[in-house]
Amino acid sequence: MIDLRSDTVTKPDEAMREAARAAEVGDDVYEEDPTVNELEARAAELVGMEAALYVPSGTMGNQIAARVHTERGQELLADTESHVVTYELGGLAQHAALQVRMLEADRGVPTPEQVAEEYVEEDLHRPGTGLLWLENTHNARGGLAIEPERIAAAADAAHERDVPVHVDGARLFNAAAALDVSAAELTAPVDSVMCCLSKGLGAPVGSMLAGSEEFVAQARRTRKLLGGGMRQAGIIAAPGLEALENRADLENDHDHARVLAAGLAEFDGFDVQEPETNIVLVDVAETGLEPDALLERCRDHGVGASPFGPTTVRFCTHRDLSDGDIERALEGVESALNTA
Amino acid sequence: MIDLRSDTVTKPDEAMREAARAAEVGDDVYEEDPTVNELEARAAELVGMEAALYVPSGTMGNQIAARVHTERGQELLADTESHVVTYELGGLAQHAALQVRMLEADRGVPTPEQVAEEYVEEDLHRPGTGLLWLENTHNARGGLAIEPERIAAAADAAHERDVPVHVDGARLFNAAAALDVSAAELTAPVDSVMCCLSKGLGAPVGSMLAGSEEFVAQARRTRKLLGGGMRQAGIIAAPGLEALENRADLENDHDHARVLAAGLAEFDGFDVQEPETNIVLVDVAETGLEPDALLERCRDHGVGASPFGPTTVRFCTHRDLSDGDIERALEGVESALNTA
Amino acid sequence: MIDLRSDTVTKPDEAMREAARAAEVGDDVYEEDPTVNELEARAAELVGMEAALYVPSGTMGNQIAARVHTERGQELLADTESHVVTYELGGLAQHAALQVRMLEADRGVPTPEQVAEEYVEEDLHRPGTGLLWLENTHNARGGLAIEPERIAAAADAAHERDVPVHVDGARLFNAAAALDVSAAELTAPVDSVMCCLSKGLGAPVGSMLAGSEEFVAQARRTRKLLGGGMRQAGIIAAPGLEALENRADLENDHDHARVLAAGLAEFDGFDVQEPETNIVLVDVAETGLEPDALLERCRDHGVGASPFGPTTVRFCTHRDLSDGDIERALEGVESALNTA
Amino acid sequence: MIDLRSDTVTKPDEAMREAARAAEVGDDVYEEDPTVNELEARAAELVGMEAALYVPSGTMGNQIAARVHTERGQELLADTESHVVTYELGGLAQHAALQVRMLEADRGVPTPEQVAEEYVEEDLHRPGTGLLWLENTHNARGGLAIEPERIAAAADAAHERDVPVHVDGARLFNAAAALDVSAAELTAPVDSVMCCLSKGLGAPVGSMLAGSEEFVAQARRTRKLLGGGMRQAGIIAAPGLEALENRADLENDHDHARVLAAGLAEFDGFDVQEPETNIVLVDVAETGLEPDALLERCRDHGVGASPFGPTTVRFCTHRDLSDGDIERALEGVESALNTA
Repeated sequence: MIDLRSDTVTKPDEAMREAARAAEVGDDVYEEDPTVNELEARAAELVGMEAALYVPSGTMGNQIAARVHTERGQELLADTESHVVTYELGGLAQHAALQVRMLEADRGVPTPEQVAEEYVEEDLHRPGTGLLWLENTHNARGGLAIEPERIAAAADAAHERDVPVHVDGARLFNAAAALDVSAAELTAPVDSVMCCLSKGLGAPVGSMLAGSEEFVAQARRTRKLLGGGMRQAGIIAAPGLEALENRADLENDHDHARVLAAGLAEFDGFDVQEPETNIVLVDVAETGLEPDALLERCRDHGVGASPFGPTTVRFCTHRDLSDGDIERALEGVESALNTA
Repeated sequence: MIDLRSDTVTKPDEAMREAARAAEVGDDVYEEDPTVNELEARAAELVGMEAALYVPSGTMGNQIAARVHTERGQELLADTESHVVTYELGGLAQHAALQVRMLEADRGVPTPEQVAEEYVEEDLHRPGTGLLWLENTHNARGGLAIEPERIAAAADAAHERDVPVHVDGARLFNAAAALDVSAAELTAPVDSVMCCLSKGLGAPVGSMLAGSEEFVAQARRTRKLLGGGMRQAGIIAAPGLEALENRADLENDHDHARVLAAGLAEFDGFDVQEPETNIVLVDVAETGLEPDALLERCRDHGVGASPFGPTTVRFCTHRDLSDGDIERALEGVESALNTA
Repeated sequence: MIDLRSDTVTKPDEAMREAARAAEVGDDVYEEDPTVNELEARAAELVGMEAALYVPSGTMGNQIAARVHTERGQELLADTESHVVTYELGGLAQHAALQVRMLEADRGVPTPEQVAEEYVEEDLHRPGTGLLWLENTHNARGGLAIEPERIAAAADAAHERDVPVHVDGARLFNAAAALDVSAAELTAPVDSVMCCLSKGLGAPVGSMLAGSEEFVAQARRTRKLLGGGMRQAGIIAAPGLEALENRADLENDHDHARVLAAGLAEFDGFDVQEPETNIVLVDVAETGLEPDALLERCRDHGVGASPFGPTTVRFCTHRDLSDGDIERALEGVESALNTA
Repeated sequence: MIDLRSDTVTKPDEAMREAARAAEVGDDVYEEDPTVNELEARAAELVGMEAALYVPSGTMGNQIAARVHTERGQELLADTESHVVTYELGGLAQHAALQVRMLEADRGVPTPEQVAEEYVEEDLHRPGTGLLWLENTHNARGGLAIEPERIAAAADAAHERDVPVHVDGARLFNAAAALDVSAAELTAPVDSVMCCLSKGLGAPVGSMLAGSEEFVAQARRTRKLLGGGMRQAGIIAAPGLEALENRADLENDHDHARVLAAGLAEFDGFDVQEPETNIVLVDVAETGLEPDALLERCRDHGVGASPFGPTTVRFCTHRDLSDGDIERALEGVESALNTA
């Protein structure tokens, strides 16, 4: 199967595997794992923050951030289509007792006007706004790469109101590659960022949560609360560090996405959103097929993709795919559509 | 001051006061207060439910309902402008660990299409929809009275998906009066309802939460958890019962609102929404005044009203106001506007 | 029935009823109810605190206090037999995410040594102690009246460790009467206190939560969150104020308890704890009867009491009982025991 | 340093490292990681449960279990000195809204009488008992190995009351080795178990949570909520599987503990508890030194141990220590004591 379901399926390469084998380790709960410490220092540097923390998943990084930045009963301002809203089991309410004030950030990031409009000042009845949540790239809106200027504009609008800003940067390096800027340029305007080592970078396990020294100290305790304190974590931090240092050619994944999008756009009934990074969204309503039915056919023809809404399908490119795979994927989808 | 800030300011009349004095009481935590028991039976009857529970506030009634109907980590589907979302301190997240999926119910109630679109089926990542939340009358959208048909349409769309439906009927009797239907007709399609005895009905304290026997049994325990178990509550249940039996002439309040709206519409810069019940919303943006500044001037001229958004002011009529009060209120606002 | 189940069954007298009828009221959510304001001022004065808040129940007062004093994830240090631990539905965990560290405070209040021993300093793994919880009188240990010296000793041990102290004073005025000190002397060493107007004082509904200005401001917001914001609450605050000003003769209730205890001690198989206030605990194990079975028989002979543990029964005296009632209660229990 | 602080410091051996390098992997969130699947199947088999789940830490396994077995607001019955009570940041309250009813399980497991006595039946006021929590070996009481009979007795007492039972088996295999029984014999009487692959077994990261198919299905979703869903987790599951299959000689660790205990018992002021497994508790009160001061001196003489209470120090043996290390540790402690 040509697996375009997600870039989470990327497998560690030989260098990562060898890094895992050879990793110098210690007990990371005691902060004595040298590989984890190195990874945290390096990640902090790359995103321009004071400190960073290694966590077992992006979800954990996000949930910790939400909780550390806020007090229970506050509002978190986020796009309706944010991963944290849609795919994290309501953790914001469950872990942090936050109410999400959802807005429609069509272009992936709220405008300063939206921030101003949706901001709530706490009073006797009203939960005040406690956090502005951004996502870059923005997965559910099509892998949109949000430019530093638009991030800064939203973040400034929040900071003017003493509201901190977190970026869910599960695919931050895709955004950086697509925009040809450094990760640190993307995070300069914000207070904290989570970025994944798995997904496009290809590490087997883990994400980084970065922010100020004080933020990370609190995040470390919250990680323990959530059960994310691991012991000789160097074994998985080492491939993570390898993935960070010798970063995958994400621009190649983006090229693949463009080729794929162009090919898919040829098919009858496919309404394809122009990709900005490694995600291709296709509205398949006009095919007359439900996403699940279409995807089952695709699987039968050797192509995996993901349902992504009532009429939408997502194809996601990644480092484990070759030019030939993209070609074969297009052939497979075509065959799937021609089956009736 | 002509107090148009809210109908919560209504004061008990002599009959209610006498009812309080003379109430037969017992310990309601033991369910031995005959007056409370009578009130609960009567309220259940009026809204066509199996049982009802007396609670000290509408907020408590709403929060209990949300919790009893759901499991933590589910989604509650509600209009962005619902009272429960805006004015209850994020209680849905805090008490019930619910995520609110907000939608824009412009006409006060979600359409079946909106329910269908926003409904989420639970899976490994997604919090499933656990409750549909309606509000009738819909306060923040201008006291809209939602007809039984529109309630039924939304409720049916929810029930088809095994999602229960609650109505925040803080002003349910205003809706019934405006639509000339019984309260029970308004609640027939739903699973539970909260309605206030204070506000337009004029009782000093308390609200009713009604639903099935089983729902109310669980609600009773949750009321205790929240600290709403009161002892000789007959003292306040009695005026509540009086308010329920000899109901205020709410249609008169609605007439007052229409007169008030017509008068306010004459003033420069006032964009007045046609009232359906006892609430008059005015967009004052064109006056060039912030709501707070305008309201301060109004107070100086003997008129109280409430800020209700960045450019909106709310006037609320109620039983303690006479025809003359409405006239004087209009004069007061006019003077306030002419002051510079 | 001679109702010795609890002092919560006391009914408002004519003065209280008349106070309810005649109360000057306003909307207390706007802090405009003059009677509530007067009650709050007077209660604060009586317990020697800066401010006080009227709440619909003792449970709500306690739960608010626990939450305002702490951060989620802390520990609360309390006697195993505290009301807040046993009878408030786990609210400490549910509302405030607190872990209770239970200790055995045999004489009703932890010793300074117990406080020192059970105190936990927060670290990466350990929830730190956030609140010391006292109860006076201590209900489940037999209505024990805790002297100011023992309160001060425990409170000092907590304060040395920067741990605030709350007193559940549901029956604070019983303690004051029994010890012949003012309520304020009992609360001088602590940071906040909840005391009930219902129970021995006989008001129909409500309790007071008192502390510093800042504490009460936060408590007011938390009361709203829990649904305890009431409107024309003066109707019930007025009898509460009457109950506070013209306080019941609690020493008479204590005399009744002593008479009752002496009489009960005559019965075969009754192991009676010497009462300090209005509560008489009887271990009935030696009767060979389960508490529930015994109490059913008592009811059949016109006496109500409460089950209070696997072999314990509680008799509670209060203002609605005369000398003759106590006599008749003893006769009733005797008959109940002689039935076989 | 001879590191006796904890068996969490054990480092993966070459076989585990090679297993990490060579692991066959997939995306475990899709349940497609063959190594994780194999590990889960094997772990379930070893503890005699229908299914198992790989989690990043013992804390996460415990917290998931507590939440899946209970409803919010219930009580969990546990020894005061349980790890879950003392060292997991109050997670039971924070994640699951549970109240812990603490008891003193001096011999490491509550007796059936204690279970009967502390069991609470839910009513309008009382949180009912929702879970019995056991720990085997029991760390804080000295690494006590609880025999199947005593587990069964406690579990039976719980099951008679429809209360499920979980075992925190962070060191379950130590108990099995010490008692010369299989792990499955230890878990036969209970509903779920968490056991660690790190600690004595030496794997770098992770623990197993096992129970019924239905329990594990719910646990999987709760793991995602907590952020424990990992991707190519085979990289750390493989050394875990290696650790499980070629289990460390835990009896050797226990021998080391006995030698160590005998040696430590020679030192003035050391009151040494006879070890049952790999944990040696020493009451150092008679040395006149605070644990922290003593441990600092030990570190200066090349020996690491852990503070474990106001006057207690814990020494923990593990697979990375040789006979000679134990000798050197004793010499180091002796020197430390002789320094003044």
